Amino acid sequence: MPELRKDPVVGRWMIIATERSKRPTDFEGGHTQPQEEGPCPFCQGHESETPPEIFSLRQPGTKPDSPGWDVRVVSNVSPILRIEGDIQRRAKGMYDTMHGLGAHEVIIETPHHARNMADLERAQIAKVLTAYAQRLNDLDRDPRFKYVLIFKNHGLAAGGGDILHTRSQLIAMAVNPKLIKEELLGAHRYFDYRERCIFCDIIQQELETGERIVAETDTMVGFCPYASPFPFEMWVLPKRHSPDFGKISEVEKWDMASVLKTALSKLSQALQDPPYNYVLHTAPFRREKLGYWKTIEEDFHWHLEIMPRLTKVAGFEWGSGVYINPTPPEEAAAYLRKLETTDGAVKARPDHG
Amino acid sequence: MPELRKDPVVGRWMIIATERSKRPTDFEGGHTQPQEEGPCPFCQGHESETPPEIFSLRQPGTKPDSPGWDVRVVSNVSPILRIEGDIQRRAKGMYDTMHGLGAHEVIIETPHHARNMADLERAQIAKVLTAYAQRLNDLDRDPRFKYVLIFKNHGLAAGGGDILHTRSQLIAMAVNPKLIKEELLGAHRYFDYRERCIFCDIIQQELETGERIVAETDTMVGFCPYASPFPFEMWVLPKRHSPDFGKISEVEKWDMASVLKTALSKLSQALQDPPYNYVLHTAPFRREKLGYWKTIEEDFHWHLEIMPRLTKVAGFEWGSGVYINPTPPEEAAAYLRKLETTDGAVKARPDHG
Repeated sequence: MPELRKDPVVGRWMIIATERSKRPTDFEGGHTQPQEEGPCPFCQGHESETPPEIFSLRQPGTKPDSPGWDVRVVSNVSPILRIEGDIQRRAKGMYDTMHGLGAHEVIIETPHHARNMADLERAQIAKVLTAYAQRLNDLDRDPRFKYVLIFKNHGLAAGGGDILHTRSQLIAMAVNPKLIKEELLGAHRYFDYRERCIFCDIIQQELETGERIVAETDTMVGFCPYASPFPFEMWVLPKRHSPDFGKISEVEKWDMASVLKTALSKLSQALQDPPYNYVLHTAPFRREKLGYWKTIEEDFHWHLEIMPRLTKVAGFEWGSGVYINPTPPEEAAAYLRKLETTDGAVKARPDHG
Repeated sequence: MPELRKDPVVGRWMIIATERSKRPTDFEGGHTQPQEEGPCPFCQGHESETPPEIFSLRQPGTKPDSPGWDVRVVSNVSPILRIEGDIQRRAKGMYDTMHGLGAHEVIIETPHHARNMADLERAQIAKVLTAYAQRLNDLDRDPRFKYVLIFKNHGLAAGGGDILHTRSQLIAMAVNPKLIKEELLGAHRYFDYRERCIFCDIIQQELETGERIVAETDTMVGFCPYASPFPFEMWVLPKRHSPDFGKISEVEKWDMASVLKTALSKLSQALQDPPYNYVLHTAPFRREKLGYWKTIEEDFHWHLEIMPRLTKVAGFEWGSGVYINPTPPEEAAAYLRKLETTDGAVKARPDHG
C-alpha cells in the first residue's frame, strides 16, 4: 500500500509510492524511445489491454470494454494511490502518516492514435470535458475523498510516458493538496477584503487591457497570466463566476473546447509541439471542513492552467519557490495571438489585434 | 532591468528575466554538449574571462583576478537580478511589481577543472563553506537585501549549464522567498506550541531511530528526511541549535565539509553521478519586519537540502504540490550507509550498521 507522509515543518503531504519502489539501479539515465505509431493499448479494439472501464461515452448499444466509444476512462495500471481501505492517519513519533488511499484513473481522449489534444476536433474535446465533469461528480459521492486533481502530461519532459496516445489523468485524494489550499486561502483573503472574487477581477482587468489575451469566446477566456512562472503559460477560465467545474454548462463546455483547442494549437505551432502539463483547479469536495468554506461558493473560480515545460527548474527555484520566466507574458500573448488557427476562439480585439 | 511580479492569488513573487528575454525560437529542443575538459573560464589562469572578483580566499601576496586563489567569487555574467537601483514597488491595477534588484554571484569552488564537489578534498570544501559564510555576512550589511539563497546545480538535468567546473551560486533578494517564509512560519508554529525547535526535535528522533541517518560527526548530521519529496534526498544540519549559517563555528565547518563530502560521494557512487541541486536554508536578514521575528533565534535552525533529480515533475506535482517519491527514505539511507567512502563522517551505529 502506498503511504502518505507529512513534512513536519511546512505541512506538505507527499507520497511514498511503495508499489513502484525503486532501488538505485532502477533509475534510468536516459529515456526509452516512445512508440510513435499505433495501435497501442489506448486504441479502439485494444480494450482488453487496459483495466476494465470505469466510465465511457459510447455509441448506443455497444458494450463496455469493446469498441464503439468516444472517450473511455480506466484505472491506471500502476496507480500512485489505491482505492481500497481507509486512511488510518497516525503518528510515528513527531511524524504523521496515512495510507495512500485514493483513485488514479486515465481518461483516454480519443479511440484513435492521436498524439496531441490540439489535433482533436472541437466536439471531441467537448466530450473529454464531459468525461472530466462526470468523473468529478461521481467521485464527489465517495465520502473518503476531499479533492480530485485532473491533469495532463504531454511529451516526455512533462512526464508523458512512452505511449503517445493523447490522454488525461485523474487522482482522487483523501487530503486537500497544498497548492490548492494556498489558492483557496488567497482567494478567500481577497474576498474578505474586497467582497469580490479575485479571479473575476483578474478576468475583468485582462479583458480591459487585452494585452495578455490569447483566445476568447462569449463565455470563456484564455490568457497568459501576469505573474506566470512558466514562459507561454496560459490560463483558461469561465467568464461567469463558478467554483465547480462539475457544474459547467453546455455552452461553456463547447466554448472551453474551442478556447482549449485554440490555445494548444497555437502553443504547438509557436514552439514545435513543446512538452506541457495542464491542471484543472476546481473547488474541493467536503469543503465544510475548511475554516473558510462558507465563502468558497463566492470567492473561488475554477480554471485550467496550461504550463509549457521549456525551462529547467533548478536549485534556486527549488529552494525559494521563486520562478524565473524568460518571456514576458505580454510578449508571449502577442506572439500567440498573431498565429492563425482554423477555429474561431479569437474575438477581434482592435487595440491588440 | 529584470522585473519581479507577484501572483495576486497565492502571493508568490516570480522574476521576468528581461535581460534573457526569449522568443519562441530561442527555446532549444536539445542540449548543447557540455565541455568535459578544461581549461574553462573558471580555471586558474583564466581570471580575465570572468567578471572581476568580489571575494577570494587566496595565498598571501597574490593579487585579485590573478592566480593564487583557492575559492573565488565573481558576479554571474548574465545575472537574474541586478545590483543597481532601488526596488520601486508599485501597483499595475490589481497587480504588484518591483524592480529586479538583487545580486547574483558564482562561487568557484576550486582553481582546478573538477566536475563534482564530492571529488574535492575535505579542506577545500571547508574553504567553500568559509566563502559562503563570508558572502552571507557581507551581504547582510546591504540594507536593501532581505534574503540570500546559496545553491548548487550539478548536472544538466539540474540546470548545471554547459561549463562543468564545480561551483555554487548565490542570489540576494529584496524579498523573502515563499518557501523560506513557509519554513519559518512552520518552525514558529511548532515553537509556539511546544517551546522547542522543530529541527532540534527532528534531529533527536532521527538519531534515536537511526534508520534514516547517512553520515554523522560530533557536531553535524546528514540523513534522508522522513517526508522527502525526492528519492535519495538528504539534509545536513548542525546538532547545536543555530539559526544563522553565517555564525557556523570552525569545528562545525570542518565537520560539515566531512558530512557533505560523504553524502555527495555516496550519492555519486550509488547513482552514477546523478544530477542534483542543493540549497542552504538559513535565517533571513532584517527579520524584525517579519511578524514572528522575535523567536527566529530560538525556532529556526539552518540546514542544507540535497535534492537528487531522478524523477520527473509532472502535472500532478505542479498542480497539487504533492510529490511522489518512489524510494522510501529508510531504504535510500540503508543503501547509502552501506557504501564505503574514504572519509570518516560515519559514526558506528550498532543497530542500523
